[in-house]
Amino acid sequence: MEASLFQSRHEAFITQAESALRRLTPAATARPARLHGAMRYSLEAGGKRLRPVLCLAAAAAFDPGADADHAATALECVHTYSLIHDDLPCMDDSDLRRGRPSCHKAFDEATALLAGDALQPLAFELLAVGYADRPALATALVRELAVTAGSTLLVGGQTEDMGGLAAGASADRLEFILLGKTAAMLSASCAMGALVGGASAEDVERCRRAGRAAGIAFQLVDDLLDLTADAAQLGKPVGADAQNGKFTYAGLHGVDATKRRIEQLTAEAVSHLQSTRGDTAFLVELVRRMAARRT
Amino acid sequence: MEASLFQSRHEAFITQAESALRRLTPAATARPARLHGAMRYSLEAGGKRLRPVLCLAAAAAFDPGADADHAATALECVHTYSLIHDDLPCMDDSDLRRGRPSCHKAFDEATALLAGDALQPLAFELLAVGYADRPALATALVRELAVTAGSTLLVGGQTEDMGGLAAGASADRLEFILLGKTAAMLSASCAMGALVGGASAEDVERCRRAGRAAGIAFQLVDDLLDLTADAAQLGKPVGADAQNGKFTYAGLHGVDATKRRIEQLTAEAVSHLQSTRGDTAFLVELVRRMAARRT
Repeated sequence: MEASLFQSRHEAFITQAESALRRLTPAATARPARLHGAMRYSLEAGGKRLRPVLCLAAAAAFDPGADADHAATALECVHTYSLIHDDLPCMDDSDLRRGRPSCHKAFDEATALLAGDALQPLAFELLAVGYADRPALATALVRELAVTAGSTLLVGGQTEDMGGLAAGASADRLEFILLGKTAAMLSASCAMGALVGGASAEDVERCRRAGRAAGIAFQLVDDLLDLTADAAQLGKPVGADAQNGKFTYAGLHGVDATKRRIEQLTAEAVSHLQSTRGDTAFLVELVRRMAARRT
Repeated sequence: MEASLFQSRHEAFITQAESALRRLTPAATARPARLHGAMRYSLEAGGKRLRPVLCLAAAAAFDPGADADHAATALECVHTYSLIHDDLPCMDDSDLRRGRPSCHKAFDEATALLAGDALQPLAFELLAVGYADRPALATALVRELAVTAGSTLLVGGQTEDMGGLAAGASADRLEFILLGKTAAMLSASCAMGALVGGASAEDVERCRRAGRAAGIAFQLVDDLLDLTADAAQLGKPVGADAQNGKFTYAGLHGVDATKRRIEQLTAEAVSHLQSTRGDTAFLVELVRRMAARRT
């Protein structure tokens, strides 16, 4: 796919994701305004919108007319809740998120806890309401997102990540964390998009696997950039992972092995995408760029 | 309904609810065991199992053969998550729950946060998986539970309750808290049971309203017992609400008005239940006993 075409489609998906987010989530002024204000504060903090973009693009790959806005927004709600709770004092105790005060700093700890707590059911409400006229689809989406956000994937990965490097550096633990903390949500994003687009069960599974491989690669690139980029390029301090006792792939297996695994995983993701019946050219390009990014 | 028949049916529903809970939620030993151990610790802490019992009884009222185990367990998962997060230091900072160390005391704060976070998607997974062969039902159940657990009801009520009496004693605020914090989940329990039992939309709505009225009455009885019971009878200190600056109906409107409202709400709940086509004799008796309880 040509770079300029990719760019314009990418920007269009981001615009669509942000517009859906604003349209489908409660206004900051809705009662209780303290709670909804905190939810919107974190939802609107920006970022790459990678999960909704993957979902919208996967849906469009199988059906250019598919309306995946509710699924895309549900994914961003779950992602945002996990960031809010991750930043809390009892977790990473992080005062900043994307250059702004984290939710519990901008509001207070109780409000941040509750904002995260309310974003989870909002995600499932969006799926049940948004696809009410296709209940088999709604049920499949709820199941996909619930399993992904649950105790064996997203929250399970968070749990095993607790204690960082100090909690023991086994390759098995690292894979569990990589899969749960990062890859599971990217995998669900692709699978949910394919479901909304009406893909066959086989193609949904191919998208799920593509998202999983691309998701692990995405995290490995993060680790690598922390080790090798220069701070000006990255926009944040380098070497912070090692200093913070973070348990990373690059730290365990070294830079060369990490680079090889990123290449392998990206090839795997591309191959899964290209073996579907969908028009996955945009997704393939996105996955390649996720692996080649410098920031 | 005869007292002995009520008792035996009540015990049977509690047994069924606890057996479903054990069967349908992950084992404490499942990976990560730290997380699943905390989830099971709080799920098994007991209590009246009021939400699952209401759900099972409402389903049985419309279809004695209905299998409402997944819905009942989903309700208890959401209720349990809300108790775990409620006890956290940034919320009520409570070291005890039902006479045992609260989750963050038995484990640690991060684990308790994550256990609550994982119980929410588990609830929605149970609905999507348990009713996969009736997707319209599954979708309706997800919607009911998601709205109930969301920012305008359960979490909204928690938010407005923050600060207790000191945050302002308006009757309007009190009603918002009563509806969201307590009544909404009891309302959803009755409605979800009726949905599983195949009740008509009108009867589901009657059950929803019955549960809402009974739920507000239930909280008012709590407030009243705190003011008027003796400690030995209640099994906990009396007068604690006033001392803790809790914002209660009895505190705002007085004992007599509280008693009158409990009677009114109970009559309203009974009337809704009796106007359905279901066999609601057990539910009617349960609602009357909820209002007349002394502990």
